[in-house]
Amino acid sequence: MSMYETIVKLALERGFYAPSCEMYGDAPAGFWDYGPNGANMKNRFLELWRRELIRRDGMLEIDGSQVMSKSVFLASGHIGNFTDPIIKCNKCGSTFRADKFITEKTGRQVPELLGESDIDKLIQDCHLNCPNCGGSFEKCSRFNMMFRIGIGPSDDDAYLRPETCQSIFVDFPRIFKTMRGRLPLGIGQLGKSFRNEIAPRQSLLRLREFYQAEIEIFCNPNRLNDLPKFEEVKNTILKLYIDDKYHEVSSEQAVAKSLVPNKLIAYYLALLVLFYQKTGLDMDRVRLRQLSGDEKAFYASTAFDFEVETSIGWLELVACNYRADYDLSGHSKVSKQNLSVIDPINNTRVLPTVFELSMGIDRSLYAILEHSYLEDFENERTVLRLRPYLAPILVGILPLVTKDGLREAAQKIYSQLKLDFSVFYDESGSIGRRYRRLEEIGAPFAVTVDRQTLADETVTIRNRDTMIQNRIYISEITQYLTAEINNYDKKLN
Amino acid sequence: MSMYETIVKLALERGFYAPSCEMYGDAPAGFWDYGPNGANMKNRFLELWRRELIRRDGMLEIDGSQVMSKSVFLASGHIGNFTDPIIKCNKCGSTFRADKFITEKTGRQVPELLGESDIDKLIQDCHLNCPNCGGSFEKCSRFNMMFRIGIGPSDDDAYLRPETCQSIFVDFPRIFKTMRGRLPLGIGQLGKSFRNEIAPRQSLLRLREFYQAEIEIFCNPNRLNDLPKFEEVKNTILKLYIDDKYHEVSSEQAVAKSLVPNKLIAYYLALLVLFYQKTGLDMDRVRLRQLSGDEKAFYASTAFDFEVETSIGWLELVACNYRADYDLSGHSKVSKQNLSVIDPINNTRVLPTVFELSMGIDRSLYAILEHSYLEDFENERTVLRLRPYLAPILVGILPLVTKDGLREAAQKIYSQLKLDFSVFYDESGSIGRRYRRLEEIGAPFAVTVDRQTLADETVTIRNRDTMIQNRIYISEITQYLTAEINNYDKKLN
Repeated sequence: MSMYETIVKLALERGFYAPSCEMYGDAPAGFWDYGPNGANMKNRFLELWRRELIRRDGMLEIDGSQVMSKSVFLASGHIGNFTDPIIKCNKCGSTFRADKFITEKTGRQVPELLGESDIDKLIQDCHLNCPNCGGSFEKCSRFNMMFRIGIGPSDDDAYLRPETCQSIFVDFPRIFKTMRGRLPLGIGQLGKSFRNEIAPRQSLLRLREFYQAEIEIFCNPNRLNDLPKFEEVKNTILKLYIDDKYHEVSSEQAVAKSLVPNKLIAYYLALLVLFYQKTGLDMDRVRLRQLSGDEKAFYASTAFDFEVETSIGWLELVACNYRADYDLSGHSKVSKQNLSVIDPINNTRVLPTVFELSMGIDRSLYAILEHSYLEDFENERTVLRLRPYLAPILVGILPLVTKDGLREAAQKIYSQLKLDFSVFYDESGSIGRRYRRLEEIGAPFAVTVDRQTLADETVTIRNRDTMIQNRIYISEITQYLTAEINNYDKKLN
Repeated sequence: MSMYETIVKLALERGFYAPSCEMYGDAPAGFWDYGPNGANMKNRFLELWRRELIRRDGMLEIDGSQVMSKSVFLASGHIGNFTDPIIKCNKCGSTFRADKFITEKTGRQVPELLGESDIDKLIQDCHLNCPNCGGSFEKCSRFNMMFRIGIGPSDDDAYLRPETCQSIFVDFPRIFKTMRGRLPLGIGQLGKSFRNEIAPRQSLLRLREFYQAEIEIFCNPNRLNDLPKFEEVKNTILKLYIDDKYHEVSSEQAVAKSLVPNKLIAYYLALLVLFYQKTGLDMDRVRLRQLSGDEKAFYASTAFDFEVETSIGWLELVACNYRADYDLSGHSKVSKQNLSVIDPINNTRVLPTVFELSMGIDRSLYAILEHSYLEDFENERTVLRLRPYLAPILVGILPLVTKDGLREAAQKIYSQLKLDFSVFYDESGSIGRRYRRLEEIGAPFAVTVDRQTLADETVTIRNRDTMIQNRIYISEITQYLTAEINNYDKKLN
């Protein structure tokens, strides 16, 4: 079984994630549900994002509607540009994403912007037919990946947003005014986005409905190097991957050597690296890859992908795009509103430009699971070495046996802890088996209640990674757990 | 200005919420965005829900897809039953929700289940015409309130869920198995639901896209009174409103007097009341209203609405429905799967029945804002008396003046606190004005840095409600804030 399959099996069998509507034959592909352990882990990941990016940088967080008006996507370019080329079999009607299909069948790379007639020519030149029935293909056409929604009885056009950031752009004028914003201003949002992928696959890695955490930094384009807080991260190492070459340099050197165009971009790339350090990803297997011209999204002028190496190759977790004034000028044109603001620092009116960190949450969670996964053959166990602040369960409460009042003592401890921590009570099976079950879902601690507990109000607390047990007083458990979480965090600061 | 308008004005001007896509003329009605203060407050509300309902009761939380397959809604009855009667003008095409239109024009109550031909007869008998052009109406038809989604190039049917709980029902078999569930088992979910309302209105009160926090308790129908934990809430007072009569009784009395059918329902109603106590709602203005036969949703056999009195009348915040086995038997029939489980307590195999707490989050936040709002004429200020753990900003950091190092001292304190608390740094305007701004968004504390700070490392910390300032050491601020939050909580436990 490949590592990818191992993680999916764990996810399915241990409540991390599973296909949506799985009991039904018509369940559409590309939709997955987080089970209890997955939802807990995701919620903790989002809290870390809030702490280490939003609050650390003093950004604002908003939460906008997922359904948005047609004008928004006319302005953003999604109605015109957010399409994939498709080919449909004349005979059986099977439909394929043309560029991927050609690459799969011929090994040829197909540029993302290749026109339909060029694709038709390629299909013909390579003698490609329908793999299902051998039929020939209709002419290539373009398929818009947004989901349309019909509003009210009159069925007016609206769309599910294909990226969360559009809410941020259209809300920017009110936010900047009511929150008394100053450039540069970061606005972040966690939420669902939707893309009608032609061929979704690989569980959490290519979904039609997925979680994004997007941050848009609104800047004065004339002051991208005027950033006093850059000092705080000037020594943070960025592992840049540019034109097939690695550059492991400090943020300061990255700017000095023009590997990154300005301090503002370098600063946010550094914050991102510091954030992922805390998630427990193996930082030897991440990189910031600069995208070449034909790889970039249609709105990006400079772009880095934060990538992580997994068993199925390098995976993009965050698109870091300098979108310039693409979005605000688009919305300004279509809405006929002046979206420029005053920058009091040099007392000029500017249309802000935007640098974004567009994070895929589902993929990030997959990568963390894979990097945390350990088959510990020596001790015959499987362990998810999740950081305490990301683990779905922080501590298990286990009575050694259920009789003689041990159950009641354990349940009392569970009740004392359950409001403040994510606690799991388990009394079934041997104690060894219960430890295994906790290790498999990454619970960093297990409290065992034994006969001595009844005599002296102590329990053992077991560390998942070292398997060492300490005996502490019941009254010390909260303090112990809090200190362990904080120490983990400090070790990394 | 009415209280409702006052709150909407505050929401718009102080970053709580605003219409989505407001810069565009084609912005569809019924979609609102949370601004920075609203998003913060909502996130805190959700954390309270997790703490006081999910963790307190040992429930599981999941997070499912919003797009679900057609079969799901055939089984749930939404494709057949989730419709509103509509009438369309023959001449100008204006469309109205028939029952509401008749009530509005004639004052007559129209039963929810009235057939189309009866509605046509009413329209005729009352001589009702189109209010826009005077034209006559086409025959009444039914409009399904689910939003359809087309999947992939073949445009297969799927729907945005009209209630979050359907994810819980279809995921139940896997969750029960992989999480080793035991009845009764509560499964909760926070997330968006979507309803294509014909006439959305009143900002957060009737949305087309809205947040629900739904909890489904899966039970053994033969053991609804076998609930040891009922003891914990037996003295909690329930204010029941049944057939136009109030009964203020303990949970225990409610069951004994058959006002509530069993201990399980009484237990969860009590947890709900305890939860809302902590939100700061005025508990003298809430009630649990039993629904009469023709008010209940199509799936409910016993139903209470948790209602709150606001300036625009009684508002339903939570629908508490005993759905019996309606959902699982529906999904069992359509999917042809046996969804029964073993209950080891009496060693029988049962199809679980379900009691639910279906909470509207947006409405709850509106009600909390309204109940917290205070025009303090004596002190010439407007205050949101939000609980510290619900306030969008916990503490403002204010240098008395910006010169002589006070700015730097204040910014240092801000940096020390910002990772753990929601902190706002503000140096612009008079100190009094800055206090006013914090009070208006409900920030319970303000730290002021003055000249004495530079001399002895102390600051003043000001309480929003009492306006009393205490002088404490900078090193004590974290402890002070933590104690204040906890004391608030303890006072209420």
